[in-house]
Amino acid sequence: MGNNRSDKTKQSPGKVSLSTVRRLSKYYRTLADLIKDGVEYVSSDELARIEGLTSAQVRKDFSFFGNFGKRGLGYTTLDLKQNIAEILGLDRQWNVAIIGAGNIGTALIDYKEFAAHGFHLKMIFDNDPSKIGKKIKSLYVKDIETMSEEFEKEKIDIAILAVPAEAAQQAADRIVKTGVKAILNFAPRSLNVPEGTAVRQENTAMELEALSYFITSKQKQEAS
Amino acid sequence: MGNNRSDKTKQSPGKVSLSTVRRLSKYYRTLADLIKDGVEYVSSDELARIEGLTSAQVRKDFSFFGNFGKRGLGYTTLDLKQNIAEILGLDRQWNVAIIGAGNIGTALIDYKEFAAHGFHLKMIFDNDPSKIGKKIKSLYVKDIETMSEEFEKEKIDIAILAVPAEAAQQAADRIVKTGVKAILNFAPRSLNVPEGTAVRQENTAMELEALSYFITSKQKQEAS
Repeated sequence: MGNNRSDKTKQSPGKVSLSTVRRLSKYYRTLADLIKDGVEYVSSDELARIEGLTSAQVRKDFSFFGNFGKRGLGYTTLDLKQNIAEILGLDRQWNVAIIGAGNIGTALIDYKEFAAHGFHLKMIFDNDPSKIGKKIKSLYVKDIETMSEEFEKEKIDIAILAVPAEAAQQAADRIVKTGVKAILNFAPRSLNVPEGTAVRQENTAMELEALSYFITSKQKQEAS
Repeated sequence: MGNNRSDKTKQSPGKVSLSTVRRLSKYYRTLADLIKDGVEYVSSDELARIEGLTSAQVRKDFSFFGNFGKRGLGYTTLDLKQNIAEILGLDRQWNVAIIGAGNIGTALIDYKEFAAHGFHLKMIFDNDPSKIGKKIKSLYVKDIETMSEEFEKEKIDIAILAVPAEAAQQAADRIVKTGVKAILNFAPRSLNVPEGTAVRQENTAMELEALSYFITSKQKQEAS
């Protein structure tokens, strides 16, 4: 029972939208809080209320990955959290490297949220001779020229790109050459990468634009 | 012609989804690049190709805000950019304050993308006596206790919250009290704010989870 659907899902993971993945990340955090508070079961209605979603949306998200729930009781919080962890790949350790030892790279080194979710910052690289070999927080800055060997040594899964915009594409090319297939890009520039490499773009200016849109549209509303 | 629709839009800006606002931000950047390259007209097909969207999506986004295009010629790049700027509120200057002079706050001070899009970093605050009064890059760190007066003096529109998770809610309460209605939150914690205050959440751990999902689903796909 339910096997069919779950098998089908395994064959077509590409169909899950980014917004579904985002909601799973949020459910995961909510479930961790509920478990901490001793809650054993949760219904789709309760989860929907907490997240500000419709129950239909929550059930749709979960049904897509197979059937977690028990009729009448709702979902077991522990099982549900474990299931989401498996889907998102949070049941294992991810080795992460930072490229660029500037302010953003430095800020990320001791960002506690990372390790708490299984993302381990293993190394940081720069091309600036005055930084290479220096210790920043817990990490020694490595020479970007050694990226390939170092990535292999520490089995890096994900690279965080935190270099200036004008250096971003060249650094991305280097990362692609190492075989790493996932890049989180803090540089304010889109990257050209081959198909099969995933890039997530952090774009703080665009977040500010969402806020300026909000203020502007409210002002227009009030003026009308 | 088209007045009716554009008036209607002005009365219901809340109906524009965040994903539409995001796409507008991207069109805006693309148009700036096209204008720099001397391109005077662009069709919805061309814009769609550049952005990796369908032409129908591009036309839908634009029709929602009124009729920008000219049949046959497409859109005038300059007009279209100006129209989007007005919608997003990028045709004016926004005064921004950073709360928290740690690594993230410091990294943001000279983030060139901000000023380029009309977001001017006016001040930075902290509660640490060893930081207050010190100069970081172009700004002197101000005492968080003076936030209310300082926000009023510099007519701050948007606050960027870059404090540790455990200090975030208290700092958000302070911001709300000043009357500022837009917060960009870098602290890894949701904020409780009154209705009418907009919060955008930066969540780097969730971006990494989108990448770990990508790798995990691909591995499952390859194994099946």
